[in-house]
Amino acid sequence: MAEAKQLSGAGLRGQVAGETALCTVGKSGAGLTYRGYDIADLAEKAQFEEIAYLLLRGKLPNRQELDAYTKKLQSLRGLPAALKTVLEQIPKDAHPMDVMRTGCSMLGNLETEEDFSEQDDKIDRMLAVFPSIITYWYRFAHEGVRIETESDVDSIGGHFLELLHGKKPSELHERVMNVSLILYAEHEFNASTFTARVCASTLSDIHSCVTGAIGSLRGPLHGGANEAAMALIQKFKTPEEAEEGLMGMLERKEKIMGFGHAIYKESDPRNAIIKQWSKKLAEEVGDTVLYPVSERCEAVMWREKKLFCNADFFHASAYHFMGIPTELFTPIFVMSRVSGWTAHVKEQRENNRIIRPSADYTGPADAKWVPIEERP
Amino acid sequence: MAEAKQLSGAGLRGQVAGETALCTVGKSGAGLTYRGYDIADLAEKAQFEEIAYLLLRGKLPNRQELDAYTKKLQSLRGLPAALKTVLEQIPKDAHPMDVMRTGCSMLGNLETEEDFSEQDDKIDRMLAVFPSIITYWYRFAHEGVRIETESDVDSIGGHFLELLHGKKPSELHERVMNVSLILYAEHEFNASTFTARVCASTLSDIHSCVTGAIGSLRGPLHGGANEAAMALIQKFKTPEEAEEGLMGMLERKEKIMGFGHAIYKESDPRNAIIKQWSKKLAEEVGDTVLYPVSERCEAVMWREKKLFCNADFFHASAYHFMGIPTELFTPIFVMSRVSGWTAHVKEQRENNRIIRPSADYTGPADAKWVPIEERP
Repeated sequence: MAEAKQLSGAGLRGQVAGETALCTVGKSGAGLTYRGYDIADLAEKAQFEEIAYLLLRGKLPNRQELDAYTKKLQSLRGLPAALKTVLEQIPKDAHPMDVMRTGCSMLGNLETEEDFSEQDDKIDRMLAVFPSIITYWYRFAHEGVRIETESDVDSIGGHFLELLHGKKPSELHERVMNVSLILYAEHEFNASTFTARVCASTLSDIHSCVTGAIGSLRGPLHGGANEAAMALIQKFKTPEEAEEGLMGMLERKEKIMGFGHAIYKESDPRNAIIKQWSKKLAEEVGDTVLYPVSERCEAVMWREKKLFCNADFFHASAYHFMGIPTELFTPIFVMSRVSGWTAHVKEQRENNRIIRPSADYTGPADAKWVPIEERP
Repeated sequence: MAEAKQLSGAGLRGQVAGETALCTVGKSGAGLTYRGYDIADLAEKAQFEEIAYLLLRGKLPNRQELDAYTKKLQSLRGLPAALKTVLEQIPKDAHPMDVMRTGCSMLGNLETEEDFSEQDDKIDRMLAVFPSIITYWYRFAHEGVRIETESDVDSIGGHFLELLHGKKPSELHERVMNVSLILYAEHEFNASTFTARVCASTLSDIHSCVTGAIGSLRGPLHGGANEAAMALIQKFKTPEEAEEGLMGMLERKEKIMGFGHAIYKESDPRNAIIKQWSKKLAEEVGDTVLYPVSERCEAVMWREKKLFCNADFFHASAYHFMGIPTELFTPIFVMSRVSGWTAHVKEQRENNRIIRPSADYTGPADAKWVPIEERP
């Protein structure tokens, strides 16, 4: 790729592209809030389903509302036969984010949002069925089995783990999945969310908005960082090896994923939270490699570059300790962020103007048509 | 939907979101240029394949280059078996844009862009195979036949007509399709193209970019206007009825599609071009209703509102005269605009910065966590 030049308006960095009541990123120091609630409170005290409700319905549910919501989501986990057939056509070596994108798009053919009055039902269906889509494909492609995707596990995170491993998850694992889904749920006008809003601004349907957002999240500059972090830490067998390896990478100016952030300047508030859960999981599985290696990477990057771990870095070891294959890390991001994406779509629809920016023209001013026989 | 308020930064109207050498819209009077060439010259003298080459490769091809390009595109019309199976799962009453979106996304699973060095091949494949995707589904869903999608027709427009009708198109019809594809090929930073660029800015793959763009084009504020124009003109049996009907709609302040434009202020340069071809087609089929009705609509809207026909309005009658079902109008837009979208993706990749704007926060400043039992 060519070296990036400074462009006028490039990346729209710092340019306001609309309003939101959903989230602040780095507004007060290192903070992250969802509808004004601090992420640390939410990750400690809430269920992911409560957070989805908060983002999508505008307030924390009371007990009755949360129970009804959880029950509704539980009832929406089944896959239509046509969608199963589609997933069975996708080869084992496909990119799991392409599977998510295609599964979501196909769902839109079978259960089309005909009118915006249906939006909440369509959104809840996606929240409930995304874990079914990815695990159905994964286990069919890799093991040749057609799994039953209905389950009576309460939580979305637990549902995913049960389908993936074919058994009920431990309380600790279900809790960590829950925390992870909360941490990834929403992050203001990031690229995938902005994709969803641009799509929504044409008054397109909800499946188009989410399908587009999945495609943007797939990009290595966006959703793929926790997979890259896993690839990094797996290279090293001891903290000493990690130190030496990282120093070499820094010297060679290689790209190191999982550190720093476009908006946060001093720390990512999600890191301390997922790090403590990764530590608990390390203790549970008796890990003496990955967690110490991860901690050493964190120390080296801070000492050498004043770069802090972002949300993705300790997610890598945490997911790994729960037996989740690396290639499914970004699809988990989708299962979570679909709550934020769709909350933004609802917000865009409430006060819409089509998003249509301008461009600076850099091409030829006036080209003269030349008949094909006279072209060089 | 709520009445739109004026938002700061809403719609990014007039805000520069990047650079392009591909297109100017309304820069010189009423003009539209592709890489500096006037749209009127291109529509009169070029083949659509030449225009795709111009947008994607940066120059008009000479005879040898165009022949080789046409031959390459011809060779890429076949559908993989897995993609056929997927299309056969999509019900007859699905939205054809959902079919295009899913077909493109599935193609990305089967023929993934592993590296940007493959981009031109992946783009050419989409240009060649999109007519196959939509007609294979359409004829399977509506007639229960599995059509052969390979054909030796030269042009993409002719290929589409042959697959749709099961016979070689007339020279006139192939020519009009060609003109139509040229007119719709590119239009700067419109919402679907901008969607593709946001996705590209995460360094995601080309199928994600195009899948997202299809989803945005699906919106009724964007790609659906020619279908809406068809619905309008089909209501009227005579120009007099059209006059009366339109006056009533204007009085009731109903939305009338196919007129005016966000950027063009006095006329849409594409209208005069497609209008003359619609007239030729009307003469060919002996139409005495749709074309006169369309002309009267144009006159009334100009007289009453100083609103001109945009590119979509006379496309409606032109497509209809060629026997194209109304629900396939927007998919034709996709077959054309995929050239512009992918040219923009290439441009974004050459000089990339992730597109990540900001938002004005309008939510609560500091919400205090309340335990679920204490919530109202």
